[in-house]
Amino acid sequence: MPGPIVTLTTDFGLRDPYVAEMKAVILSINPQAQMVDITHEIPRFDVRTCAYMLFTAASYFPAGTIHVAVVDPQVGTERRALLIETGKSFFIGPDNGALVPASKKQGIKSIYELTNRRFMMPHVSSIFHGRDIFAPAAAHLASGKRPESFGREIRRIHSSSFTRTKKENGKLVGTIFHVDHFGNLITNISIENLSLVETRSNLTIEMGQSRRKINFCTTYAEAGKGKALALIGSHGLLEISLNQGNAAERFGVKTGDPVTVLLRN
Amino acid sequence: MPGPIVTLTTDFGLRDPYVAEMKAVILSINPQAQMVDITHEIPRFDVRTCAYMLFTAASYFPAGTIHVAVVDPQVGTERRALLIETGKSFFIGPDNGALVPASKKQGIKSIYELTNRRFMMPHVSSIFHGRDIFAPAAAHLASGKRPESFGREIRRIHSSSFTRTKKENGKLVGTIFHVDHFGNLITNISIENLSLVETRSNLTIEMGQSRRKINFCTTYAEAGKGKALALIGSHGLLEISLNQGNAAERFGVKTGDPVTVLLRN
Amino acid sequence: MPGPIVTLTTDFGLRDPYVAEMKAVILSINPQAQMVDITHEIPRFDVRTCAYMLFTAASYFPAGTIHVAVVDPQVGTERRALLIETGKSFFIGPDNGALVPASKKQGIKSIYELTNRRFMMPHVSSIFHGRDIFAPAAAHLASGKRPESFGREIRRIHSSSFTRTKKENGKLVGTIFHVDHFGNLITNISIENLSLVETRSNLTIEMGQSRRKINFCTTYAEAGKGKALALIGSHGLLEISLNQGNAAERFGVKTGDPVTVLLRN
Repeated sequence: MPGPIVTLTTDFGLRDPYVAEMKAVILSINPQAQMVDITHEIPRFDVRTCAYMLFTAASYFPAGTIHVAVVDPQVGTERRALLIETGKSFFIGPDNGALVPASKKQGIKSIYELTNRRFMMPHVSSIFHGRDIFAPAAAHLASGKRPESFGREIRRIHSSSFTRTKKENGKLVGTIFHVDHFGNLITNISIENLSLVETRSNLTIEMGQSRRKINFCTTYAEAGKGKALALIGSHGLLEISLNQGNAAERFGVKTGDPVTVLLRN
Repeated sequence: MPGPIVTLTTDFGLRDPYVAEMKAVILSINPQAQMVDITHEIPRFDVRTCAYMLFTAASYFPAGTIHVAVVDPQVGTERRALLIETGKSFFIGPDNGALVPASKKQGIKSIYELTNRRFMMPHVSSIFHGRDIFAPAAAHLASGKRPESFGREIRRIHSSSFTRTKKENGKLVGTIFHVDHFGNLITNISIENLSLVETRSNLTIEMGQSRRKINFCTTYAEAGKGKALALIGSHGLLEISLNQGNAAERFGVKTGDPVTVLLRN
Repeated sequence: MPGPIVTLTTDFGLRDPYVAEMKAVILSINPQAQMVDITHEIPRFDVRTCAYMLFTAASYFPAGTIHVAVVDPQVGTERRALLIETGKSFFIGPDNGALVPASKKQGIKSIYELTNRRFMMPHVSSIFHGRDIFAPAAAHLASGKRPESFGREIRRIHSSSFTRTKKENGKLVGTIFHVDHFGNLITNISIENLSLVETRSNLTIEMGQSRRKINFCTTYAEAGKGKALALIGSHGLLEISLNQGNAAERFGVKTGDPVTVLLRN
């Protein structure tokens, strides 16, 4: 039997030894662990993008997967270290909101604060909890340690507004959750939110300084090359794209910017 | 026994959750699969570079390896999804020519169109067949499903001119197949093609707007630092390089550009 | 039982098939090998950075790990290929100093020159010893071949000054060992070296053209946002950083530049 899956999501990049050190620590504790990188190219300290990665990718992993996510500008301060158990899997990382959207999507069962030093590295560096606290916690959990042995159960954690949308003045207001490598603008507006919109053959969308009508398609290739389109992306979220072009550059917008869809055209 | 090897080659980059989602799908279906990344840094929609990656790397993997390659600007359109069985391994990806040079090198045995929905994700997104069609196909194949169970056998697929060279007017004409990270220009002219050339101690090569004589070496270090050299690269292809320099920048050429070698100096 | 761990550290980048070819060769010889990437983003031909990666990351891997490091501007020349056995693990790569700091840290037991062609690829390319010599050596070693079967034992190898520091004229003089992805300046001055410094609440540091006092902290967040701080990094080395900023850009320095700490403020 192959061992449990541990995923890693960080803003460490791939130029430094940091990710390898986390993997080394995990393999030292649990040589059976199967590690899968989600991404290490999160923009530095960008908690929203970290939340997005877990929110989208975690759904596809088998039950029991342990997700470690370290985007941690407050490392070494009072911010807490968390282990969240959901109906399907586990999330480990700092208490800054990054774990919340993915955990809520799966249904939070319990939250523990990682305080048990037996499950940390013998020397905990004040600046690298990814290696010294979060990686060993994942490895011990993968070895069968009970979630409640890592520390006391807690109720209140840092919340997150990353998935929040609202309806006001005839508009559906969300934000750009992520700009992907192709320049696609992935919003936090779900297919369920969009059911409020009267006609979906084309959408009237406000972004940046302008308002435009954008055709609603099911594939990129439906729009002419370089033309804008809206579609429901592969995670059930509204996405604004250019066919074979870069929507983020064209529209001059970025992660976190507001996106508004008119309910009536 | 370790499980079957599944390689992944895409233009998805490593900033997004897409590669991890493919791996998650594969591990959900076949937890034994051993996944190896060839590269995910193919320039967007660059089918030629995708073909190059498979053409060079696939040779080194053990028999039975399953290669998944997704550079797919036509995703969601009528283009077909393929499974090619060769004398040594399997290639899975869209029908756009990317799989052809590597498959032909190994000898194509049969080609199947992936149509059996039992081997796809329950919901197939119109824009992410890598996750919803190609990854599950690889995982099921790795689990022992017979190639013919994925869909009907087909004969004609999209061809590819990426490896084509020709001899005309005393010249051997090829193209730049790949510009690597060091700026080396790797052509599609093989060591066998070069046997046509009269003297190989130095080659007269036309690239971009100019013609130059370039010394033929066996190591980079044979040329002075920053000097141009030609050699047979590690895949048996003619390569034009600068010792510790960047040939692509120096000569102002790029992937797909023609390269001509004079048969007589 | 999971197989032995083989780590890979190169300057090949992730755009090319080179890393995958090394992995393919390793898996062809030893399908049980567990491969972990340390980094492939070392600046081209930068032996110092390669040495840094091994020096820091190797400590965290389990005993018996095999570390392969290929930054090899002299590939194909007379430079030797090495296998170093330490008290804890193995280091394989070209004889250019990159393996030395990490090997010495673990205690060198024996050094072998890789010459036995039975443990190389049948055809050894003159420009890709990573794939044709170093990867197969690692795989055979992982399969239980004795170190002495790879070639004769040797005594003298290329040395390295990367970890050298000196005390002169009331100053402690070291170098910048690595600039990480966050722009942190990691010096080769260890916590032990720093015991020479009279007061450590703040340090007087000379870098580039200037001299400045820098507060000594234990976390990044202790300094104001964008403020400089000095700390002992997660590997026990003096590090100069900006809280949530890029110290390398601010101070205009780079890997290999000198760093001086005044022994008395």
